[in-house]
Amino acid sequence: MFELKGYLQTRRHAVNREIERFLNTLPYQSRVVEAMRYSVLAGGKRLRPILCIAASEAVGDGNATVVSASCALEFIHTYSLIHDDLPAMDDDQLRRGKPTCHVKFDESTAILAGDGLLTLAFEVLADLGLRQSRSDRIWMKVIQILAYRAGVGGMVEGQMRDIGTQGTPLGLSQLKALHRLKTGALIDASVATGALLGGANAEQEQALRSYAGHMGLAFQVVDDLLNVKGDTRLTGKAVGSDCAKGKNTFPALMGTSASEKYVIGLRDQALQALECFDKKAAPLRAIAHYIIERNR
Amino acid sequence: MFELKGYLQTRRHAVNREIERFLNTLPYQSRVVEAMRYSVLAGGKRLRPILCIAASEAVGDGNATVVSASCALEFIHTYSLIHDDLPAMDDDQLRRGKPTCHVKFDESTAILAGDGLLTLAFEVLADLGLRQSRSDRIWMKVIQILAYRAGVGGMVEGQMRDIGTQGTPLGLSQLKALHRLKTGALIDASVATGALLGGANAEQEQALRSYAGHMGLAFQVVDDLLNVKGDTRLTGKAVGSDCAKGKNTFPALMGTSASEKYVIGLRDQALQALECFDKKAAPLRAIAHYIIERNR
Repeated sequence: MFELKGYLQTRRHAVNREIERFLNTLPYQSRVVEAMRYSVLAGGKRLRPILCIAASEAVGDGNATVVSASCALEFIHTYSLIHDDLPAMDDDQLRRGKPTCHVKFDESTAILAGDGLLTLAFEVLADLGLRQSRSDRIWMKVIQILAYRAGVGGMVEGQMRDIGTQGTPLGLSQLKALHRLKTGALIDASVATGALLGGANAEQEQALRSYAGHMGLAFQVVDDLLNVKGDTRLTGKAVGSDCAKGKNTFPALMGTSASEKYVIGLRDQALQALECFDKKAAPLRAIAHYIIERNR
Repeated sequence: MFELKGYLQTRRHAVNREIERFLNTLPYQSRVVEAMRYSVLAGGKRLRPILCIAASEAVGDGNATVVSASCALEFIHTYSLIHDDLPAMDDDQLRRGKPTCHVKFDESTAILAGDGLLTLAFEVLADLGLRQSRSDRIWMKVIQILAYRAGVGGMVEGQMRDIGTQGTPLGLSQLKALHRLKTGALIDASVATGALLGGANAEQEQALRSYAGHMGLAFQVVDDLLNVKGDTRLTGKAVGSDCAKGKNTFPALMGTSASEKYVIGLRDQALQALECFDKKAAPLRAIAHYIIERNR
């Protein structure tokens, strides 16, 4: 039996250490960096970096370079949270149990902190790529996938649809498409990045990205469920806030119990995608269970 | 005598054609892409892409790949304009003679359009890098410089200082430092990118970046001067808007006439930096004159 708790903890610590290092070496330690630091270090689960590391471990080894690269995923994740929380967007006051960036600082600082984190992600990856003796091509592919999935080919388009359809009921396929972009895209990029840096062959990469596709959707359905019936003290978000905003969610569309069944089906498909891997994929398997059972 | 008008026109057309092509091949042609298109195609001078192309021509040839890569600079420039114009930032209604992005669309769309353009810049460069048979290393360096200069190592920090110091008088060295970041950083990245892609050696790269350093500052001083005494019909911006906001500007600090002399000194230093180049640097030289004589 794989011991996930210790695994998550050691990986999270390694990622946090690297994040701190990147932030400390920024050329200015100014107000905007303070805001970037505040949001990045607000205590996230580091799920995306850990998925990247675990994917690289499934095919190779999760070495220090992969840990460094995985921070780019957290920078992009945090940038998207900061911008999504803005008054013009979701207008959220609470994130990870703390005041959101624009509440703690102000709107202009929050916009710039997001912009700073987004660019930092690419800077970090280019820096790492230039420092390696092995093929730059893999690093260029990492940057390409991440830029594509963070932009109009993923998160930006997903967020646009999310905001644009509030109050307008979507069908299930539209809701899935929205969340494949908004949430799924970065989870896909996380796993794809780990696969590339771990040296996955084409077949392994495809299997890992199939895993990521199912997990990305499962993650969002669980998020929606936690917004309906979660504990604010654990989730750090106000319960029922999605519903109050007229957001399209899986529980609203399918009902709570069907959503819970749907999540289990997604998890099983994700696990099935990992069948071609040996015990080195144990962390990825355990994370699949963890994601749907989490309460925060 | 170098004929700049025709040069700028052919390069601008080439850049615009590529920009259109990149926008047309985005995976979704949705509201956010419409907003990106609106702002990018609002009729800018394409100065940054043209500086990139001219720098590459000074040391090598400005081939089609350089033209494609140079679009990334315009995407980043436009993203920064969109975000800077937001109500929480400079709250500008008019840009290039047209309603700003958040006025034409709305705030959330404008934030996302900026985010989309910023990521698109890196996607385009990674795509181009992967398509070349020659060294990926140069492309990785291009991405690194651009990410660094767009982020906290340049534009983001510059804009933060610009907003944070409105109403607080700065000294000349602080104002210069601010604009080396806010405006100069992307002009530096434009020239540096062109130098790298043109195959500059270390000495040439240094000379070109010295040129860019002086031109970046000159560009901003002229911008400030146009805001004081320019023609709104030409500049597309409201005259006196900087002053009304209590912005720190060169004319406010040094006076109009000293600012005009300062610009000429900067131009001369920029031209001096180009002394080691032959007539292939004629476009860069002509642009130095153009930038300080422009009326828009």
